[in-house]
Amino acid sequence: MNVLIAGGAGFIGCHLTDALIDAGCKVVCADILRFGGREKLEKYLGSADFSFYETDICDERRLDEIFAAHSFDRVYHLAANSDIQKGGGDPSIDFHDTFLTTVSLLNAMRRHGAREMLFASTSAVYGDKRELLKEDTGDLRPISYYGAAKLASESFISAYSAMNGLRACVTRFPNVVGPGLTHGAVYDFIAKLRKDPAKLEILGDGKQEKPYIYVSDLVDAMLSMNYPEGVTVCNAGVETATTVRRIADIVCEEMGLDNVEYRFTGGAAGWPGDVPKFQYDLSKIHALGWRAKHTSDEAVRLAARLSL
Amino acid sequence: MNVLIAGGAGFIGCHLTDALIDAGCKVVCADILRFGGREKLEKYLGSADFSFYETDICDERRLDEIFAAHSFDRVYHLAANSDIQKGGGDPSIDFHDTFLTTVSLLNAMRRHGAREMLFASTSAVYGDKRELLKEDTGDLRPISYYGAAKLASESFISAYSAMNGLRACVTRFPNVVGPGLTHGAVYDFIAKLRKDPAKLEILGDGKQEKPYIYVSDLVDAMLSMNYPEGVTVCNAGVETATTVRRIADIVCEEMGLDNVEYRFTGGAAGWPGDVPKFQYDLSKIHALGWRAKHTSDEAVRLAARLSL
Repeated sequence: MNVLIAGGAGFIGCHLTDALIDAGCKVVCADILRFGGREKLEKYLGSADFSFYETDICDERRLDEIFAAHSFDRVYHLAANSDIQKGGGDPSIDFHDTFLTTVSLLNAMRRHGAREMLFASTSAVYGDKRELLKEDTGDLRPISYYGAAKLASESFISAYSAMNGLRACVTRFPNVVGPGLTHGAVYDFIAKLRKDPAKLEILGDGKQEKPYIYVSDLVDAMLSMNYPEGVTVCNAGVETATTVRRIADIVCEEMGLDNVEYRFTGGAAGWPGDVPKFQYDLSKIHALGWRAKHTSDEAVRLAARLSL
Repeated sequence: MNVLIAGGAGFIGCHLTDALIDAGCKVVCADILRFGGREKLEKYLGSADFSFYETDICDERRLDEIFAAHSFDRVYHLAANSDIQKGGGDPSIDFHDTFLTTVSLLNAMRRHGAREMLFASTSAVYGDKRELLKEDTGDLRPISYYGAAKLASESFISAYSAMNGLRACVTRFPNVVGPGLTHGAVYDFIAKLRKDPAKLEILGDGKQEKPYIYVSDLVDAMLSMNYPEGVTVCNAGVETATTVRRIADIVCEEMGLDNVEYRFTGGAAGWPGDVPKFQYDLSKIHALGWRAKHTSDEAVRLAARLSL
């Protein structure tokens, strides 16, 4: 199978590339390399089963060349500004990197007759809700530009599917951790503690509590998706969750640090647009036969350990 | 109150302009005049309470000039490609005219500190569903680029509201009819019957059945909205509905035509992206004290009569 991974050099994209090449796919990665990542793909350069294009996914002319040079059976769309916090300061970041990339890919797929897409969506599309989040939960009110850009992407995927016979699997990711992290609490805490092992600034009150999925579990989830007619929306996650304070504890333990002084910036949310607490209903993806192998705490610990 | 009406020269925009000027507002209309309309606003030119700017709403530099020259208490965002059928042939039409206009306005409001928006949304955001459509109905799957562009607009309005304290009223319109129509079944049937009063081509099987709201009722609905903190979503419509075949009958009656031969193009939908049948739950807007004065059939008849 010929696949395109948009955002293939990103944190999750690299792990997906590994898995798809292991599964015997011919993989084309397209990535603007905003978060680095070329070195993680170097082992495949020169292989007949792998091509890499450094490009802005919004560059439709470049996409036309890539689609013309390959005949894609499926597009994995992971290209996005994955740093929600950074995007909060400038709405144009998520507009371009998280939303326009989707429209650009949909247009290319329409022009070149590509028929299958997996879209990396997010819990952020639900907004700040306390109930268990189900795929058919209504009244979705994203509170971040990132969440809006992902929900707007889902909207366009729906119409392009209906108008052009696209089969799309919209997989809503929770927080994802593992080797190769480029940002997030685990990444930040390690960086801060390396600078100063005596104290740790923690954004918010530390009580934010979310499910963290281990990246290999998420890649398995993506590979277990089906592509029936139309659009299939599916949460991917773990039933457990980890507080930000617990992440700090785990990182300190893994770094062998005792008596670190925590300094909380305060407030329920870590930053504007942060959803402090959520959990998924996972009955749909469990019915597909997939289940995460790592709990949220285990995922955080393993990610911390392998990032040191 | 100073208001901006984006799309103020369009079919609904002109009626809203009349109502807001009657209500004592200072009205600024901005419109690209893609559907004409300048002549309908000529009576106000030169008035101290009215300004008109011919501009693409996506032109953010032009919007900056307009926002800098006025201090808007509220923005009515009616700018869109209102011809869903036409947009089906080229996704860039609704992307630009229906979606980018929203982002452009949100950016201008953010830069200039404008705090209130009424957004003209649509039943098309729900997609093709047979249940009574409620504001909190989930699993929204627009099947037209128009519906996607409106739902994507709602997504960004939600995030801009949370991030910038915007109070937004998202009003989901059904089909709207009245004097000054620029497209749609009533408009098309009159045009076709003027060319050939003996026969009438009807798109689909004629059984499509939707609520048609009279434009003055819709304007009343818009004026009765509240703007609490955050985003308020509200269906606006009528409890009755009219089939496309019934519209043909009403138009023929109003034109005094007998024995017109109907030729159906066939199929449940009139065109790709057409939702053949829907109805709203209206309990939310009725609780606000608003109720349409005209039934759907009355609205169609009055619109036909006043369009002759």
